[in-house]
Amino acid sequence: MKIGIVGGTGDIGEGMALRLSHLHEVILGSRDASKACTASDCTIETLRGRGIQSSCRGVSNQEAVDGGDVIVLALPFAHVESTLAGLTGFENKIVISPVNPIARSGHFYYDPPEEGSAAQYIQKRLPESARLVVAFNNIAAHKWKDLDAVLDYSVAVCSDDAEAKQIVMSLIRDLPKLSPLDAGPLAVSSIVESITPLLLNIAMSNKMRDVGVYFK
Amino acid sequence: MKIGIVGGTGDIGEGMALRLSHLHEVILGSRDASKACTASDCTIETLRGRGIQSSCRGVSNQEAVDGGDVIVLALPFAHVESTLAGLTGFENKIVISPVNPIARSGHFYYDPPEEGSAAQYIQKRLPESARLVVAFNNIAAHKWKDLDAVLDYSVAVCSDDAEAKQIVMSLIRDLPKLSPLDAGPLAVSSIVESITPLLLNIAMSNKMRDVGVYFK
Repeated sequence: MKIGIVGGTGDIGEGMALRLSHLHEVILGSRDASKACTASDCTIETLRGRGIQSSCRGVSNQEAVDGGDVIVLALPFAHVESTLAGLTGFENKIVISPVNPIARSGHFYYDPPEEGSAAQYIQKRLPESARLVVAFNNIAAHKWKDLDAVLDYSVAVCSDDAEAKQIVMSLIRDLPKLSPLDAGPLAVSSIVESITPLLLNIAMSNKMRDVGVYFK
Repeated sequence: MKIGIVGGTGDIGEGMALRLSHLHEVILGSRDASKACTASDCTIETLRGRGIQSSCRGVSNQEAVDGGDVIVLALPFAHVESTLAGLTGFENKIVISPVNPIARSGHFYYDPPEEGSAAQYIQKRLPESARLVVAFNNIAAHKWKDLDAVLDYSVAVCSDDAEAKQIVMSLIRDLPKLSPLDAGPLAVSSIVESITPLLLNIAMSNKMRDVGVYFK
């Protein structure tokens, strides 16, 4: 599978490249392609140090969209609108949103746009044929890049496209110990996204770090 | 501690009585006191069968409020308004809300009142001195009553009253394997409540039963 990562130089993008680029072709995009190249070289070098061959390459965000079968929007919510406005070619592609609109005033809280959730906001800004799937929202960014950290969590997956959902659930199973769970349609994506500020509050109030969630 | 349970003849109320009435005085209330007596006799009998002495007694909802230091509102959201309208005496008491406003159309979704959450709705209907704490929202009702089921979950606890929150967290620790976590103020209670319809969707879509949540 060809995985294009838009905003690939953040923790989630680089972490996904580190954890998936020996199994899949990972196309790491950035607004600044040279930054993506640096991140990609870094990924290849880190994996080489562990005796693993990486297929990662760094490109522009547009090339990541053009080259991927599955596109991950590894972006802070505040950058979603401007980034999507500058990109084309999402038609018929599977698009993964791990985006969470969060704000803080003392505690963290969920701050969704009027569409209801970041995913529903993104859906409005993609062509109708794009196959949007919500996944990876509740994994702490830090944990992605730390290859010694086992991601032993559940991943709630929402989509209105049953086939795209299954493809993403299968991709999640490639990450050892991550357990994908069908969480329903996009209409419930706000619940999945809102768990992230809750995890941040729990970490802050209970002196925990990088809290994740497990459904059992 | 004296625990008064309003709506004590449901799964959560009876389950709490079964699991806590050997450690605490449990005052099981119901709109119909005779039903509460039956449930209470049942609890005592079940525990006797296991060689455990129970302090449970069945009374009216009003007597449960009057007799408890901590009051649990073990009610479906649809019954909250009418039940609270008929009760007095919540002043200065710790009140636990495990209430989740849920609706269903194919999938389950979170259906909060205009106050933002069931807890914020309840807060408006209690005297100002009542010390409201959100807890026990994400444990499947069935599991409470099955004494052979270990409740091995996290319990997210929200309150604006730091001392009341600590007292409830300490009560949660009396239930083996349940792990209380400070999840912040009442302002984030909607997130905790909304996890329950997500759990119901996950159970439904993944052929699981009585799904709960663990934060780690």
